Amino acid sequence: MNNSRASFLAITLVLLIMLSCKEKAENENQEAISVEAESNHPNLILTQKGVKDIRANLGHIPIFDKSLAETKAEVDTEMALGIDTPIPKDYSGGYTHARHKRNMIILQKAGVLYQILNDEKYAKYAKNMLMQYEGMYKTLPKHPKTRSYARGKLFWQCLNDSNWLVYVSQAYDCIYNYLTEEERNKLETNLFKPFADYISIENPQFYNRVHNHSTWGNAAVGMIGLVMNDEELINRALYGIRGLEMDKTAKDDDGGYINKDGKAGFLANIEEPFSPDGYYNEGPYYQRYAMYPFLIFAEGLHHVKPEVKIFEYKEGVLLKSIKALLNLSDADGEFFPLNDGQKGMSYYNSALVSAVDISYHFGGQDPGLLSIAKLQNSVLLDDSGLAVALGIKNGEEKPFDKKSINLTDGPNGNQGGVSILRNEEIELVFKYTSQGSSHGHYDKLSYSLYDNGDEVIQDYGLARFVNIEQKGGGNYLKENKTWAKQTIAHNTVTQNETSHFKGEFETGNKYHPDLNYFSSKDTRIQVASAKDVHAYPGTEMLRTMAVIKDEDFEKPYVLDLMRVTSDKANQYDFPYYFLGQVLQTNFEYKIPEILKPLGTKNGYQHLFVEGSAKAQSNNSKLSWLNNGKFYTLTTVTTAADDLLFTRIGANDPDFNLRREAALLLRRKNVKNTTFVSAIEAHGSYSTVTESAVNSKSNIADLKVVLDTEDYTAIMITTVKGVSKLFITANTNTEPEHKLTISNKNYEWSGSYYFK
Amino acid sequence: MNNSRASFLAITLVLLIMLSCKEKAENENQEAISVEAESNHPNLILTQKGVKDIRANLGHIPIFDKSLAETKAEVDTEMALGIDTPIPKDYSGGYTHARHKRNMIILQKAGVLYQILNDEKYAKYAKNMLMQYEGMYKTLPKHPKTRSYARGKLFWQCLNDSNWLVYVSQAYDCIYNYLTEEERNKLETNLFKPFADYISIENPQFYNRVHNHSTWGNAAVGMIGLVMNDEELINRALYGIRGLEMDKTAKDDDGGYINKDGKAGFLANIEEPFSPDGYYNEGPYYQRYAMYPFLIFAEGLHHVKPEVKIFEYKEGVLLKSIKALLNLSDADGEFFPLNDGQKGMSYYNSALVSAVDISYHFGGQDPGLLSIAKLQNSVLLDDSGLAVALGIKNGEEKPFDKKSINLTDGPNGNQGGVSILRNEEIELVFKYTSQGSSHGHYDKLSYSLYDNGDEVIQDYGLARFVNIEQKGGGNYLKENKTWAKQTIAHNTVTQNETSHFKGEFETGNKYHPDLNYFSSKDTRIQVASAKDVHAYPGTEMLRTMAVIKDEDFEKPYVLDLMRVTSDKANQYDFPYYFLGQVLQTNFEYKIPEILKPLGTKNGYQHLFVEGSAKAQSNNSKLSWLNNGKFYTLTTVTTAADDLLFTRIGANDPDFNLRREAALLLRRKNVKNTTFVSAIEAHGSYSTVTESAVNSKSNIADLKVVLDTEDYTAIMITTVKGVSKLFITANTNTEPEHKLTISNKNYEWSGSYYFK
Repeated sequence: MNNSRASFLAITLVLLIMLSCKEKAENENQEAISVEAESNHPNLILTQKGVKDIRANLGHIPIFDKSLAETKAEVDTEMALGIDTPIPKDYSGGYTHARHKRNMIILQKAGVLYQILNDEKYAKYAKNMLMQYEGMYKTLPKHPKTRSYARGKLFWQCLNDSNWLVYVSQAYDCIYNYLTEEERNKLETNLFKPFADYISIENPQFYNRVHNHSTWGNAAVGMIGLVMNDEELINRALYGIRGLEMDKTAKDDDGGYINKDGKAGFLANIEEPFSPDGYYNEGPYYQRYAMYPFLIFAEGLHHVKPEVKIFEYKEGVLLKSIKALLNLSDADGEFFPLNDGQKGMSYYNSALVSAVDISYHFGGQDPGLLSIAKLQNSVLLDDSGLAVALGIKNGEEKPFDKKSINLTDGPNGNQGGVSILRNEEIELVFKYTSQGSSHGHYDKLSYSLYDNGDEVIQDYGLARFVNIEQKGGGNYLKENKTWAKQTIAHNTVTQNETSHFKGEFETGNKYHPDLNYFSSKDTRIQVASAKDVHAYPGTEMLRTMAVIKDEDFEKPYVLDLMRVTSDKANQYDFPYYFLGQVLQTNFEYKIPEILKPLGTKNGYQHLFVEGSAKAQSNNSKLSWLNNGKFYTLTTVTTAADDLLFTRIGANDPDFNLRREAALLLRRKNVKNTTFVSAIEAHGSYSTVTESAVNSKSNIADLKVVLDTEDYTAIMITTVKGVSKLFITANTNTEPEHKLTISNKNYEWSGSYYFK
Repeated sequence: MNNSRASFLAITLVLLIMLSCKEKAENENQEAISVEAESNHPNLILTQKGVKDIRANLGHIPIFDKSLAETKAEVDTEMALGIDTPIPKDYSGGYTHARHKRNMIILQKAGVLYQILNDEKYAKYAKNMLMQYEGMYKTLPKHPKTRSYARGKLFWQCLNDSNWLVYVSQAYDCIYNYLTEEERNKLETNLFKPFADYISIENPQFYNRVHNHSTWGNAAVGMIGLVMNDEELINRALYGIRGLEMDKTAKDDDGGYINKDGKAGFLANIEEPFSPDGYYNEGPYYQRYAMYPFLIFAEGLHHVKPEVKIFEYKEGVLLKSIKALLNLSDADGEFFPLNDGQKGMSYYNSALVSAVDISYHFGGQDPGLLSIAKLQNSVLLDDSGLAVALGIKNGEEKPFDKKSINLTDGPNGNQGGVSILRNEEIELVFKYTSQGSSHGHYDKLSYSLYDNGDEVIQDYGLARFVNIEQKGGGNYLKENKTWAKQTIAHNTVTQNETSHFKGEFETGNKYHPDLNYFSSKDTRIQVASAKDVHAYPGTEMLRTMAVIKDEDFEKPYVLDLMRVTSDKANQYDFPYYFLGQVLQTNFEYKIPEILKPLGTKNGYQHLFVEGSAKAQSNNSKLSWLNNGKFYTLTTVTTAADDLLFTRIGANDPDFNLRREAALLLRRKNVKNTTFVSAIEAHGSYSTVTESAVNSKSNIADLKVVLDTEDYTAIMITTVKGVSKLFITANTNTEPEHKLTISNKNYEWSGSYYFK
């Protein structure tokens, strides 16, 4: 009772203060509303009901109050500095770029503050800035910098102009009722309409395609259309430019087709890149970037055009995609750096604040999302942020439980996919996706391995330092193509020192691996198996990866079977990009006096050879230490196998690459072969106590006991002599299996056997 | 009132439970105490009064209660497993070694639990284990492993036997009154006395010297002597073995003299290695290791022999040394890895729990220590731990404020030292110590640089993986000598590719640099300056390092002046072991197709050359990114200077070295030269927001405007054109200075000028 009375008093107090300060503005606004019955603004992201609810809860929703206070402090600081809308001249990094980018953010926030705090000064500030833009834009030429395939006006590329309009539409909606009709006409006629036309009709190569750039363009045109209630703009946003014929063979700067199949518009941009499971074809790093326009425009559509049923579109793929994206992050919330992904991007990014809040509000109030929102410690200042803040306040959050998951790729979910196998602190990311458009890597059936958020076997990610001007202007570095995209940079098979699809985008873009099976029902053993027959014509690769929690092992271990069959003899290179300090090998190796590159092209020119050996036993072992934990690789070898220690960094004239290691297993002049490995995480080391616990491998022997077209069977024997058998079905999709190995009969149901 | 009543009830409850369960034991003990009036045990670490106070506070001192609960859980688990005292046979890492080590810890803890919880089962357990040791020890031969210069009996080296006795003495003290006189006689005659004699009289090469090993030996003999009230043992502990003559030329396995000057005993072990400021001559990593026996024996002496006034000895150096040690840690509490220090060792180590608690209790209740104890989240289960727990409970803690500090080295404080310059998040460790005994590096006037606990310019530390058996049994690796100790591995001058003192221990051990001046009064500018004239006969090196917080710079920056004068022309190599990713240089460099070692010996054989250039301007600049922060080195160069990018890892057949980089400035065929550099920390980069802030150097020009025997003057000009002048006095120790540079007169008071 005490609490609710205190709340009532606080609310009353807040409202009284608002009223006393802003009485005049209130009255004016109320008048305006009564005069124009059609003006139900704000209705795009904020809604009239939402604003009312937010105001009623202010002071009692800690995470919202905190986000609001931060926003207010930020906007107040900017307002004190005055308005500047300079004549555009710079690339990103330069002043005019940064200023216009900052203006769009502050405009959006000022609009929100006007609504929530009901303080006219924010509306006035936004109006004044918009009027300055109106004054400038009507005579503004193309941006003077010429590097982009689609030059903007405020910025050097239409992409940034679109960003601007996505934010500014929200500001306009918030102060719509504050403006007079005359003011609105002026802004719409001289600024918003021509702005929307410029980034769409005048730049179809940017706007009218399926690409994350276009999504921003579509959202920008659509959102201003919704505020202006302009059906033509809304339709242009949803379906693309009406009646436009485009050159289907044209390519963009990254080598991707601009519009091969004529698809365009926001709905096509949802249709094409998202699989039915919500996997975004370029991978999580780009999904994160694209997420904001997808969701913010969807939220606007949901409010203004509920009949579009945007959140139900393609069986609710937009909301599914948020769950998929969150599942594509490691234990620390960092996205797996598939394709051209920069490491360290995580669900702490502001785009994910939007995604989590919108997913929670419009997607069934999953209490797991509240725990992520709590970590983010920030919410959107709108209805969805209010919902999250109330959920957290009411203690409704539950852990966001990331389990093993298989996400299909392709518009119809039949172009490969990505499997994440999780068991305790071990996460294995098995990638058998399609090319991933222009940001894709030639890395069919590759994987990376994490232990409690730390990389153990790494995917290199991209060769770029985003927005760090000293590194090639913050853009893609040439090593992204010569190294990061190449097959040898990944934990998969490179045949004859040539990348998958010969590193040709057109070829790679045509094909994808196919799932053999995925199984995560048994909590002890998670398995994914996929096959590729296109990366090297005439060669088939079937990879089966399992994360096994066995009572004879301290931690879950990885079993990795890569079965290669070919119509001719080849050289196969199979690297393990382990991170950490080499502790021990069970093979003698030689180190060279001088370091030479391993090859001259296809990424090989970037690898120095630091050590070499011939395998000396049936199992070659490498153990290493990383972040206070021990790891051991055990791989089945024959005396003909070469083992090479390599280090990235050769032919790297600008020190663009990280000097990281790999152990590379090389098999020469073989038609068919199966790479069989186990990777154990075990024990720990502390530099504080200096105690090394369980620092040795638990595997005494790893043996292939059967390897046929239909089945591969591996015997794992521990140092205590306990043996277990893993059998995987290579072809047979029947649920029931019978097999005889060494006169012993095995019968089981399901795709694999483990006992 | 409510609270105090609740506390009273809780205490009463605890006491009642204790009484009801243990009544019989109590009564027996009280009887024993009344019978033997002389038995005032425990009195070594725990005291009778302390036990009473602890019992009275139990349940109300959270950090103590937690430590007690953890200890109880640990001991209960071990007790459930039963007692094992195996016949010794293994090196460290093996079972018998680990078992006896574990036994000593559990014995000590069981004794403490018996006293605090008053539960007889712990006393009985300790008694039983001690009797098993008694049964074994009386006929036990030397340990079968022969690697040590002083083989133990329970362990392969006397050092570990001494560790055992230090802990077990405490257990014996705790159960002294529980044992019958007959039992005590049996243990003392067959176990403790012969044990103490073995590690001292029978192993004088271990016991009778000044060395951290001997400190353990002295403490072991002294602590059992205190419990047994054996004056002879106590004197042997304090003063060494009476009347023993030792070979003054003998050396140990590490190359150090065993006993060059005949000094021995605990007091000599305090006298010699500690400077009056409390700096321990081997550096913080070894001080941490030696700390426990110093302090735990001191605590015992303080209790049993207060007349020794051990905490006042040498003007209170033991307590001073704890403050010195804490000051030798970075922002994360990790010790600077001077000499053979393993990185990552920190004040979270249990030896520092003892040190912090004892320092607090016996050293004037510094509330700053409570904040460290709180971070450690653990206290000693004794009077000092109680004091800390009460201090924390009463909210008395204050931040432990680490300021700039100069610590002298040498028994009398006149053998060089180490200066730590701190300003905001920047810490610079300037080392001008003496050799540091057998663990010393040949690194006169070297330094390392930290930013909020992250290494920016690193000291390599040692080449060893302590206790990781796969790496050379966890012992020093050969690369420790061939790389880590060598001068080229450090951020100082190497002349003619030869280490200081030619890398000869005897020579290095004779000399030390001398302080020119240290100044930390001005909060804006912290300066240390020291000179070495012995590392290279005929060559003098004077280094002056300043950390400057200037209003024209975002963060404090480093100014580094290394003035070298010689009687002949030499080659000088001056490396910067920066950690992180190269962003940009202002000089064109070439990278080699193949990597070759820089040299063949003195550490040069371990450096690959990754790039080379001739300096192309008066200032050569390198900027890099590390842990989300930007750094720029600006160094004054001439066209004759070579710039080499190097990487550690050549001739490293077991991958024992970390593949880390340096930029090496090389001046050939020069007699006198001054290396002048500035290192700026600036800006930040986030992989989550992908924004790069202030990523560029603020220094437009760094210029030597005067460089004479008496003064060096440097002009620093920012990109905005603001110039400041730094003048350092190279020789003149007068407080008042007058100087004319370019017809301008400068007058100042103090060792440097900055304006």
